[in-house]
Amino acid sequence: MLNDVGPIKPETRERVLAAAQELGYVPNALAQRFARRKSGNIGVIVPVVPKVHLFTTYYFAEILSGIGDAAKRCDYDLLLIFREMDGERDYAKLFRTQKVDACIVLGAQNVAEERDALRELKTEGYPFCLVNQRFDGEGFMYVDADHEAGSYEAVRHLLERGYRDIAFLNGPGAYSNSEDRLAGYTRALTEAGLPVRKEHLFEGNYSRKSGYEAAAGIARLQQEGGIDAVFAANDRMAIGLMDGLREQGIEPGKQLAVVGYDDSDGSRIVSPRLSTVAVPFYEMGKAAALRLLAPSADDVPNENHLLPVQFVHRETS
Amino acid sequence: MLNDVGPIKPETRERVLAAAQELGYVPNALAQRFARRKSGNIGVIVPVVPKVHLFTTYYFAEILSGIGDAAKRCDYDLLLIFREMDGERDYAKLFRTQKVDACIVLGAQNVAEERDALRELKTEGYPFCLVNQRFDGEGFMYVDADHEAGSYEAVRHLLERGYRDIAFLNGPGAYSNSEDRLAGYTRALTEAGLPVRKEHLFEGNYSRKSGYEAAAGIARLQQEGGIDAVFAANDRMAIGLMDGLREQGIEPGKQLAVVGYDDSDGSRIVSPRLSTVAVPFYEMGKAAALRLLAPSADDVPNENHLLPVQFVHRETS
Repeated sequence: MLNDVGPIKPETRERVLAAAQELGYVPNALAQRFARRKSGNIGVIVPVVPKVHLFTTYYFAEILSGIGDAAKRCDYDLLLIFREMDGERDYAKLFRTQKVDACIVLGAQNVAEERDALRELKTEGYPFCLVNQRFDGEGFMYVDADHEAGSYEAVRHLLERGYRDIAFLNGPGAYSNSEDRLAGYTRALTEAGLPVRKEHLFEGNYSRKSGYEAAAGIARLQQEGGIDAVFAANDRMAIGLMDGLREQGIEPGKQLAVVGYDDSDGSRIVSPRLSTVAVPFYEMGKAAALRLLAPSADDVPNENHLLPVQFVHRETS
Repeated sequence: MLNDVGPIKPETRERVLAAAQELGYVPNALAQRFARRKSGNIGVIVPVVPKVHLFTTYYFAEILSGIGDAAKRCDYDLLLIFREMDGERDYAKLFRTQKVDACIVLGAQNVAEERDALRELKTEGYPFCLVNQRFDGEGFMYVDADHEAGSYEAVRHLLERGYRDIAFLNGPGAYSNSEDRLAGYTRALTEAGLPVRKEHLFEGNYSRKSGYEAAAGIARLQQEGGIDAVFAANDRMAIGLMDGLREQGIEPGKQLAVVGYDDSDGSRIVSPRLSTVAVPFYEMGKAAALRLLAPSADDVPNENHLLPVQFVHRETS
């Protein structure tokens, strides 16, 4: 009642406030949540890809673990909302129907429907945060990592080891983190006085299968003497690529250097062990949830920053 | 109104029913759900283990992927409820507060508090299902796999390859699936006329670290000529064990045969590739969610069955 919810006569309100002050009353957080009809849920919107076991994907699994730990700590439950790749994006409805009190959007794509849905959340004042994704110029809250720097480091490492013709197997351009990686790859080559060759650029969809399928084209380039190394935008594609290269008679790490990205469990146990870039996905998920559920004084939505990533040298480069 | 919710005068009810029949009225599922104040959520209770990134665990990741796909198909959202290992177990509250319409319990333990909480759900008539876990004699709905047969097959395989002294690294006995594995191990040895030796039994907690830590004792037994093979109750422990054995100067797969359990991603890319038992975790999660959300005529809670598992022979045995 002390928080201006519901109709209440001004004189009643005055009396209650006076009594409360006299008694040293402090509002109870749980009672307030109940009175305000809060759901106690933090929503996480996750894209659904047919045939891909979402949670088995290192990137999602780690981000969700971080969100889950933060939610648990703040006494929230985690509501997973599955969105098909081309499905409806009425995120505001989740708030209107009181299913969630705050929302994290994973795998957001730079397409018109996505921007519109997120702008609606912002206009309505619903708290939300993007993870591992940005929309420049929109002023959305996000927690992202410095993938430009990570990709730059990965390619510089290859250049320092003497590799000169470095192919790049990137993910789809609709993700800002794919754009970041291309920018880092380009900067490293340009700084070294090397051209970015169109025929060195390949695109997968971040799945192991797409890495495997890219192997034929990459093997051909290697056999023609066109390339001596490959930088893959995530470990799954790199591991699929390694399998595919072997079938084409190319030993990854020996005849063709390979660098992945993510520092997933797989990169540590695949043979030869994959050089990669460590991304703090768990911490990113945790940071996003804490910014929404337990914001501190310096959590300004427009003051987003990028978490650092780190190159990890193993056996494939 | 046609479903006997809320107080309504008998004569009004008669008139409405007559009118509905005349107009060819059929009830709308969504409107009904709304009228009944259903949440549209399926709850999944997951245990939280400090420092373990839950979703990165193959077993949970696959079960959740299956539940998620089924929930999506039935137009439900998935509410994750994190329960600390020794935390409160007021599952019925989730239903009373209308947070969920149905519930799946993962990692249920055979302890008194768990049994009590589940019995309360059953008594109150709240729909729930256990996955990969059973409580014999309670009549709870569950979807489990035949881990006794899987363990039997794994140990029989080792016996057929000529191994005679087989250590067993099991998980905690509070899980029915650990008991099942011990039963399968025991049956295979007994059938072969071999004793089950106490000093061959080790216990971890299904984590990679616990497998790593078991390596010292297992290595000592191997060096004393006491054992020639190890059966580990999951791949994570087996992979940790392999790392630990190498540090003790024992080459897994050569000096000591190793068989894991789960057929996780890790088992397929570790070197040497791990022999293991494939468990249909994804299908188990999916089956449990479908039994709750889209039950068919033959879904009788008391008629539970075990899904088949399959031994997979790779390089470590």
